[in-house]
Amino acid sequence: MMELFFKPKSVAVVGASGTPGKLGYVIVKNIADSDFDGEVYPVNPKSDEILGYKVYKSLTEIPGEVDLVVTALPTPKITAAAMEECAKKGVKAVIIESAGFAEIGGEGKVIQQQIVDIAKKNNIRVMGPNCSGIVSRNIVTSIYPMTKKVSRGNVVLIGQSGLLAAGMASDIVENESLSVNKVCSIGNKCDVNENDLLEYFGEQDDVDVISMYLENVSDGKNLTRIAKKVAAEKPVIFLNGGRTDAGAKAAMSHTGSIASNSKIVKTAIQQTGMIQADDFGEMKDFAKVFSTQPLPKGNRIAVITLAGSVGVVVSDLCAEHGLELPKLTPDTMEILKDKFDTPVSNPVDLFFSVTKIGFTKTLETTFPDALKDPNIDAAVLILAGFEYTQEAVQKKIIQKIVAEVGKPVVVCMIVGYNKYKNVITDELGKDLPVFPSLISGVKALSKLCEYGIRKHQNQP
Amino acid sequence: MMELFFKPKSVAVVGASGTPGKLGYVIVKNIADSDFDGEVYPVNPKSDEILGYKVYKSLTEIPGEVDLVVTALPTPKITAAAMEECAKKGVKAVIIESAGFAEIGGEGKVIQQQIVDIAKKNNIRVMGPNCSGIVSRNIVTSIYPMTKKVSRGNVVLIGQSGLLAAGMASDIVENESLSVNKVCSIGNKCDVNENDLLEYFGEQDDVDVISMYLENVSDGKNLTRIAKKVAAEKPVIFLNGGRTDAGAKAAMSHTGSIASNSKIVKTAIQQTGMIQADDFGEMKDFAKVFSTQPLPKGNRIAVITLAGSVGVVVSDLCAEHGLELPKLTPDTMEILKDKFDTPVSNPVDLFFSVTKIGFTKTLETTFPDALKDPNIDAAVLILAGFEYTQEAVQKKIIQKIVAEVGKPVVVCMIVGYNKYKNVITDELGKDLPVFPSLISGVKALSKLCEYGIRKHQNQP
Repeated sequence: MMELFFKPKSVAVVGASGTPGKLGYVIVKNIADSDFDGEVYPVNPKSDEILGYKVYKSLTEIPGEVDLVVTALPTPKITAAAMEECAKKGVKAVIIESAGFAEIGGEGKVIQQQIVDIAKKNNIRVMGPNCSGIVSRNIVTSIYPMTKKVSRGNVVLIGQSGLLAAGMASDIVENESLSVNKVCSIGNKCDVNENDLLEYFGEQDDVDVISMYLENVSDGKNLTRIAKKVAAEKPVIFLNGGRTDAGAKAAMSHTGSIASNSKIVKTAIQQTGMIQADDFGEMKDFAKVFSTQPLPKGNRIAVITLAGSVGVVVSDLCAEHGLELPKLTPDTMEILKDKFDTPVSNPVDLFFSVTKIGFTKTLETTFPDALKDPNIDAAVLILAGFEYTQEAVQKKIIQKIVAEVGKPVVVCMIVGYNKYKNVITDELGKDLPVFPSLISGVKALSKLCEYGIRKHQNQP
Repeated sequence: MMELFFKPKSVAVVGASGTPGKLGYVIVKNIADSDFDGEVYPVNPKSDEILGYKVYKSLTEIPGEVDLVVTALPTPKITAAAMEECAKKGVKAVIIESAGFAEIGGEGKVIQQQIVDIAKKNNIRVMGPNCSGIVSRNIVTSIYPMTKKVSRGNVVLIGQSGLLAAGMASDIVENESLSVNKVCSIGNKCDVNENDLLEYFGEQDDVDVISMYLENVSDGKNLTRIAKKVAAEKPVIFLNGGRTDAGAKAAMSHTGSIASNSKIVKTAIQQTGMIQADDFGEMKDFAKVFSTQPLPKGNRIAVITLAGSVGVVVSDLCAEHGLELPKLTPDTMEILKDKFDTPVSNPVDLFFSVTKIGFTKTLETTFPDALKDPNIDAAVLILAGFEYTQEAVQKKIIQKIVAEVGKPVVVCMIVGYNKYKNVITDELGKDLPVFPSLISGVKALSKLCEYGIRKHQNQP
């Protein structure tokens, strides 16, 4: 049934508009600009053609079957009427984008319940209201104009908030290196909720990472059951808005819903093995690491640095985030010592070698050995924005080493992040997670190790 | 005496070189490119002229007085000999940049002690060895080529690490909006240490913020005494490398010094009111907030947001960092309600108003009132990278409001950080601290409030 939302063969937009800027126009335009190759039916009693599509006066007038209906109607009442028409037409999936329902209370709440009643009676699944639907390569029902096509990535983002899910989706698609498959904004969750999506995406082979932002949990018991099953297979990153009293109060005035008791959610996270994020940035950071790096079997980290002091601070941060910096094996130390002509420990300080034989050569002769070391599960690679770093990135030196060794690596930039952003972050960032600070990279890696260890332990 | 390092009237570079790329060349070039208007004396027995300066065979051959000597000599032994010559010449301040002293042990350690003995006997102050000296508008003795001139800012950075202090200095000067006055790299601290610099900069009127990175504390008792006095006047931000066992081990192999017992440092930080940073990024972030924003008297925050969900997460982060989100006063709520036509709480969600009257007008009619509210000490302003935000920044709308109200504000970007970086971050970042994530902005503001409250309480 959830397939109808994500892989419909036909879509009707009820409340379609020919006026650029209007929600009913943007949705039709977004669908037109996506890879959707099924039938598109704009519905509007007053138009004949929108963006080249024939417009229908009503849903029931549409000749073929309609898999998915997206509504962009001015009032809740008219939306409820459209639901009745959906029932008549035999539609089984509806996305209601407009706001003004339960989140404002009063009549909005009453009408939302009417919509739920119609849906239940007619076996219709409803996403929303007060949401911005779906952004994917196949279909974009979002209010937000997507100027580029979504990638065919392996990350799914689920958000409760309309603006953010849409804005963030667009931002990631346009500006970030995160490889997104779908973004879903589920708004008031009058019917379809996070559990439905978790279960669905848990079963999709092209989805490797699920990230979600929720201000309240629709059904804690089911979340725990489903998330446990899904998180055993693939990482589920969870940003829980309203986890403090202050946040809960803000959530109340934002979505009108009482934020989930933070203790219940905390317990659910612990029981299910979901990964907690504290910020939208972390949600993206963690997703980037999980979606691009293999899972480590342990938490033993090699730190590769250009400056001793950065090695010191990263060592501190690793220790504070539950990561270990073991000694390299005597074999590796011997190999590195020969190459460096000085004793090498962990952190591996490249500085003197770089001044002698250059950055690229130093990296090629030391990084693979340190990363391959049997004492090492993963690495933090510190890069500085210099000419030679840019050269190494453009020659794919770092990317090749990481790919060949097959262990997870996060890159942290210390200086020159802004100056070399285009090359180092954007270019290297296609293959590896690149962080503008030490703390963000170490925290993300700690989450990867935590999950990797748990998964490894649970394997038969 | 410390004045001689920072405001010398004459500088000699012993080991000056005419060969571009060499340390002895870079130092002369950097001094030449700085605003230094005193005498410059390159010393090298084999040259006649370097970069237009007359070269002297030895220090004693120089006709006038020499306030400051910078050495860039190939071996510790030759450096020790140069120290003897400094004594003969009556020099009172020496910066030794080259490495190979106590940090490598053995003979290096012995010679460093000889240098200290010469210094003590002759009343000479020595900075280094194994350091990269000073970067300032007046004089640059750093190894690192500074392509632009340092600003006449109000922030001083003190670092133990040569590469980092130099690299970070250059990075900040070239790429960051931090308004730096001086960067000092004190290396092995054989004589001049953090306490000397803290005391000196504590007394300088043009220095408002002192940030330091140390891997070991030279004299904990004096640090506590001096830092307590200085931190009562101006913020001292302290990144303590080696605060964990792993970090301490890395520090040992980095600077050869045993890292300070983390408990001692922790206690010193608590007793003195220094502000602890966990990462170089935080060191810069905190310095940016402290150097641009007034001190709040309390921790009561207004959150101004474009998206409800972001308000929720910022509320959570505020609560987790000891910040309160009070209700606005009834008066302010009434004013805002009139303007918004809906009830307004804290976080102040601008979304509906923006869709109705636009971003700039919404900001102008709501942000000043929320910020002026007597219940409010400071604000987190959430901006998204959109066309209209860019417009508001270019028209200086935000900057003017913040300047007029006179309360501290941090700006956090949610989407479009990369796309609009040039305008929003770089342009707005000249006047306000702009953060690419919520968590970093909230943490920095929490430090400002913590310090502001302490200072306010200690005032008579």
